[in-house]
Amino acid sequence: MTRSSSRDARDEAAVLDKLLFALAKTAAERDREGGTAKRERDFIRESGLLQLSIPKELGGAGADWINIFEIVRKIAAVDSSLAHLFAFHHLMIATLQFFGSAEQSRNLMACSARENWFWGNALNPKDARLKLWADADGFRLDGEKSFCSGATDSDMLIVSAHDVDGKLKVAAFPTRRAGVTVHHDWDNMGQRQTDSGSVSFSNVSVTSDELLLSPGPLGSPFGALRPCLAQLILVNIYTGLARGALSEAIAYILGLPADGAARIGSDPFNLHTLGELTAQVKAAEALASNAVAAFQHAWSRRDAISADERGALAIEIASAKVVGSRAALEVGSRVFDVMGARATTARLRLDRFWRNARTHTLHDPLDHKLKEIGDWALNGVYPTPSFYS
Amino acid sequence: MTRSSSRDARDEAAVLDKLLFALAKTAAERDREGGTAKRERDFIRESGLLQLSIPKELGGAGADWINIFEIVRKIAAVDSSLAHLFAFHHLMIATLQFFGSAEQSRNLMACSARENWFWGNALNPKDARLKLWADADGFRLDGEKSFCSGATDSDMLIVSAHDVDGKLKVAAFPTRRAGVTVHHDWDNMGQRQTDSGSVSFSNVSVTSDELLLSPGPLGSPFGALRPCLAQLILVNIYTGLARGALSEAIAYILGLPADGAARIGSDPFNLHTLGELTAQVKAAEALASNAVAAFQHAWSRRDAISADERGALAIEIASAKVVGSRAALEVGSRVFDVMGARATTARLRLDRFWRNARTHTLHDPLDHKLKEIGDWALNGVYPTPSFYS
Amino acid sequence: MTRSSSRDARDEAAVLDKLLFALAKTAAERDREGGTAKRERDFIRESGLLQLSIPKELGGAGADWINIFEIVRKIAAVDSSLAHLFAFHHLMIATLQFFGSAEQSRNLMACSARENWFWGNALNPKDARLKLWADADGFRLDGEKSFCSGATDSDMLIVSAHDVDGKLKVAAFPTRRAGVTVHHDWDNMGQRQTDSGSVSFSNVSVTSDELLLSPGPLGSPFGALRPCLAQLILVNIYTGLARGALSEAIAYILGLPADGAARIGSDPFNLHTLGELTAQVKAAEALASNAVAAFQHAWSRRDAISADERGALAIEIASAKVVGSRAALEVGSRVFDVMGARATTARLRLDRFWRNARTHTLHDPLDHKLKEIGDWALNGVYPTPSFYS
Amino acid sequence: MTRSSSRDARDEAAVLDKLLFALAKTAAERDREGGTAKRERDFIRESGLLQLSIPKELGGAGADWINIFEIVRKIAAVDSSLAHLFAFHHLMIATLQFFGSAEQSRNLMACSARENWFWGNALNPKDARLKLWADADGFRLDGEKSFCSGATDSDMLIVSAHDVDGKLKVAAFPTRRAGVTVHHDWDNMGQRQTDSGSVSFSNVSVTSDELLLSPGPLGSPFGALRPCLAQLILVNIYTGLARGALSEAIAYILGLPADGAARIGSDPFNLHTLGELTAQVKAAEALASNAVAAFQHAWSRRDAISADERGALAIEIASAKVVGSRAALEVGSRVFDVMGARATTARLRLDRFWRNARTHTLHDPLDHKLKEIGDWALNGVYPTPSFYS
Repeated sequence: MTRSSSRDARDEAAVLDKLLFALAKTAAERDREGGTAKRERDFIRESGLLQLSIPKELGGAGADWINIFEIVRKIAAVDSSLAHLFAFHHLMIATLQFFGSAEQSRNLMACSARENWFWGNALNPKDARLKLWADADGFRLDGEKSFCSGATDSDMLIVSAHDVDGKLKVAAFPTRRAGVTVHHDWDNMGQRQTDSGSVSFSNVSVTSDELLLSPGPLGSPFGALRPCLAQLILVNIYTGLARGALSEAIAYILGLPADGAARIGSDPFNLHTLGELTAQVKAAEALASNAVAAFQHAWSRRDAISADERGALAIEIASAKVVGSRAALEVGSRVFDVMGARATTARLRLDRFWRNARTHTLHDPLDHKLKEIGDWALNGVYPTPSFYS
Repeated sequence: MTRSSSRDARDEAAVLDKLLFALAKTAAERDREGGTAKRERDFIRESGLLQLSIPKELGGAGADWINIFEIVRKIAAVDSSLAHLFAFHHLMIATLQFFGSAEQSRNLMACSARENWFWGNALNPKDARLKLWADADGFRLDGEKSFCSGATDSDMLIVSAHDVDGKLKVAAFPTRRAGVTVHHDWDNMGQRQTDSGSVSFSNVSVTSDELLLSPGPLGSPFGALRPCLAQLILVNIYTGLARGALSEAIAYILGLPADGAARIGSDPFNLHTLGELTAQVKAAEALASNAVAAFQHAWSRRDAISADERGALAIEIASAKVVGSRAALEVGSRVFDVMGARATTARLRLDRFWRNARTHTLHDPLDHKLKEIGDWALNGVYPTPSFYS
Repeated sequence: MTRSSSRDARDEAAVLDKLLFALAKTAAERDREGGTAKRERDFIRESGLLQLSIPKELGGAGADWINIFEIVRKIAAVDSSLAHLFAFHHLMIATLQFFGSAEQSRNLMACSARENWFWGNALNPKDARLKLWADADGFRLDGEKSFCSGATDSDMLIVSAHDVDGKLKVAAFPTRRAGVTVHHDWDNMGQRQTDSGSVSFSNVSVTSDELLLSPGPLGSPFGALRPCLAQLILVNIYTGLARGALSEAIAYILGLPADGAARIGSDPFNLHTLGELTAQVKAAEALASNAVAAFQHAWSRRDAISADERGALAIEIASAKVVGSRAALEVGSRVFDVMGARATTARLRLDRFWRNARTHTLHDPLDHKLKEIGDWALNGVYPTPSFYS
Repeated sequence: MTRSSSRDARDEAAVLDKLLFALAKTAAERDREGGTAKRERDFIRESGLLQLSIPKELGGAGADWINIFEIVRKIAAVDSSLAHLFAFHHLMIATLQFFGSAEQSRNLMACSARENWFWGNALNPKDARLKLWADADGFRLDGEKSFCSGATDSDMLIVSAHDVDGKLKVAAFPTRRAGVTVHHDWDNMGQRQTDSGSVSFSNVSVTSDELLLSPGPLGSPFGALRPCLAQLILVNIYTGLARGALSEAIAYILGLPADGAARIGSDPFNLHTLGELTAQVKAAEALASNAVAAFQHAWSRRDAISADERGALAIEIASAKVVGSRAALEVGSRVFDVMGARATTARLRLDRFWRNARTHTLHDPLDHKLKEIGDWALNGVYPTPSFYS
């Protein structure tokens, strides 16, 4: 490491610590409020971390995914909603590269770096209510999309719509485009500040160069990595949640009056439970890290990646998802056994770890992932690339 | 069953159904609001069910515990906060019999039946801040009690306090007694309408015949059953919560648009999960029923009960608690795997089953119960009667 | 209870205790040997317990299923192989009643009581290699059957075979019939003395009154209870195994030199583990007992039983099977955590509880039972009666 | 990698494959026989792999622990008894370095490489029956040691004994030394060919330069790593067992007649179970690999290692042990759910994975490890170095 890169690393660490501190301070309160974390989104904007995944030559930080996911996990440990928005922003940046032409993605990334854009999505491929058709001036969009995490307060959107032939098309354009209405209708039991509500499109104009057609959705070996990245984001948020629940529980106990902390900390059953949860978190982290490293390798292979390599990566990610998912749910629930009844006070909202985990782990069914892993283990069959596999 | 008792049973069932319907209708909304369920407490008052555990000859319904706990479980399935208040009311009625003289308990029960009292508690024996001392006119109370479930809006209180020798004394007197202030300071993540806040006593006068001294707390073989009954209430609320979470999930799915319900209901993994949860609920219910029957038998033995019989009962209840506790937590969490992501909408507050279970299962550590069961299984040692064993 | 029935009960208890003692004494050694437990089968013959399920008016003991299964569970706790043979004997007696005419079953049961027959089976309906056809003198059987528990050393066999139309036919005739060869080819890792090997039939003659045609297999509402009884036997053997593993572990520890026993018995984690296992065994027993009571009720209804009643019974049994199956496996494995490394000595063969449980719980897939329970819970669909549901 | 090191790697891989093949071929049969695997021990001798951990300059292969443990895990997957003997041999080589002087360990390692010694142990520190005292010519040993894995057929022994002051002393000398009797008394339900029986010492002469006194047992920061290495061996054997059980199950299914294999391989519940087990094995492997890497780093630090670094390493290893231990037990048991009832045939001895795991995971209580992890997580306390922590 050169002297300047070591200084960069120190600076980045300081920026991140400041962000984590700011997010942690208000996380419980914002969990109560729900809605859009405008102020915290702006903190992220100011941190410069939105540029992480953009290549240096285009004005970004050129970080690799190992670095990015380390940060995602740390944010998720204190605020899994914001971690989701942050990670999905980078998924959108990657989507430009997965689905768009080299020129499109370069232009949009350069612009994104220059303008410090925060990207949101209206891409849920299971919701077929949004239609795209050609008109004289280009294209038009009309309809609705649900589960549009991060659309609110975003600068740019990546949108999927079905064309007249029922094919999925993906476009990237500014959120403030005429006809686009982002609804504030996300009010759920967990992940409360992900703004994962709906977006309406009323006769929205789209130019042809805003469509990511070459290769288009899952249209190339490299592009087929997109769902791997999306799943890997889930994995790392679950892992961060598990770690966060455990850390917060320990901080809670250590912050109790001395006799209360001592009573809890000397009970062999409590230590045993914390031992169980620690081992479970470590297992989730180890698999998540392995999966991130495998993804980074696959990413670096670009279109040279083979179907089998892609399949093996998908299995690594799925395995990490199984273990991470369980860890987030179980740690989020069992930490209370150690903290005791007083930790249930509404003021602390310590149930948010379980609520966030429970909400987020329903993104797509774990049972299907388990079946895919088993099909590979026994039959050597890799999952067919789709938006969820 | 005679014709009139069969009509009584029908009437009781109708009254209960009406109450369950009323509680269920607003349970989600009231979980949001928290605070005192004044209207629902009055529904319970109007139902006549507060008289269940009072002997017929004293104006009550003379129901046995098997009957009472069946009702507790049904209420807990739709509203575990109100179930707790309802069950604790009957624990207070029983406490008169456990700790007071025959005359005291007869008088207070007769009065309770006549006046339709709703009893609350300020009895938490772990909180030693409330003091009792003798003065010229009788006794005085001064200090605080925490975790006083059901004190708010109660007509009568059972209170424990430490006397000058550090001994625990228990008294029963009207909640509106001068110097008693019930605080509205319960705001927790679950069991939100149990009003389990604190009560202050400022130089409160207590007469000697309000003290339950003969035999006093845990002062007789029969009196030593009091913690068994308290624990059995927890068991049945956990079991009701587990059943409630499962029933509500099934109702949710069946209430979805036909294609959504069909998609969920034909997925083998979903059915498998529901099979697991059903078996788990049935196991919890079977053990809870066995424990209730054992308690009813012990209750009917009065002071003839031996220490070993009491010990065997405590082990039955502890075993039911282990299984019920796990069932409530796991079912409350895993039903979402079947319901899917849309069930996390804040409007339905379906997370309340887990939140209620998580809060209530922290009443006293399950680990200690497990150790007690093991100590009996291996060493033949029964738990020493205490307020938690 | 009259004086004489109380004396009967005492006698039965003494007979059973003697049998249990004899089986327990050599269980480990016979687990090593495998093969046919001729001596122990004769102990069962001598005990008179083979007559339990035969009505008193036909010379039997007229016991109900609650009584019979209590005994099955006790035998299973010390020797699950012999328990299987014993329970399957009674399943064969019941099969006469399920599938045969009233006259056939009466005659055969009277004869069975008189001759003290021990019944075995060659009934595995999944093995279609055994064929039945009519000839001049009646019928002929030719082919093979696998998994014929209890055929070795049996006096009578119940055999299933496929006729020329591919229909399953069931017959009852003496094992020593010419052409019948019972193979000693069962050598498995668990349930080692169930003689669940194969039987060959070489041009075996069967008379028409040996065929159970009226109503035939699953041919009536009452007859459709047969698989319920078969499954219920599995449930009670699993439950007995779980209890047996726990009891044996405790006996092992209490039998250690005093300091070793004291060290184990004072370790809080050991007691905690024993608490877990005890609660799990109790849950299995409670569900098994409920299922047995439900079966006894259904049995007493004879052909008045409705499809829904049968379905509800099947669900009770399936739920008990899920919990019993897990308990047998987990207790059989986890008791070692408490007993410690020295308990792995081959001499004691304490691994036999897990090996027996693991072997026997593979009888038919638990996953299908779980799916059936879920299908009922969500869709209200009862399992279609078949030889496994 | 240079050309010659790449050829070395290929040669080593070929040697290992040959050994694995030879061990796998007879593993089931030898599990039946138990006793000493003399032929297979000689295969290991011939493989040259006994030299792996000896530095190149002393005539060894100079492999690092990452390399060695990869091999241990592969051997454990096919034969966990031989894996234990192989790994313990390297633990003995390391013990020379941990407890002996630089000169002692260099001499003994050089000799070991030259003579191709296979080391065994009689070191069980919990067994205090072996005594050491000084006499005119040096020292004398008299007494017994239990659990002496690998003593049979060994060339050299590492022995621990208590001196007249009750201090533990460790010596290294030839197994054929007069007065040493290795008993063939290991006959246990699992790990059947580890020869973990007892050794008697009758007035055995030991010279002073055979005592490892400088620094002696756990006598230096580096020496305190010895229990870490011992525990890490357990971890990797558990992990290998888990992987082996899964691989063997898959091989079993794929080796069935086509319709049987297809039926199993197309059942969604079977694939789901295999998915679960695969994810569990991967988690165990990931943690084991992390722990091995951490150990290698600590090893390379020699006496520069701090108490905290040593503590952090112990926690990594303990966490891997928790997850690996559970994986070995659960995979060894649950694979049968997928393989089905016929896989229980005694001929295949597929229960050996569970039996080996169950026996070996009792080496020292997992509960204590869990408590240690919890104590670190909450209180920041590292386990005190001892022979088990």
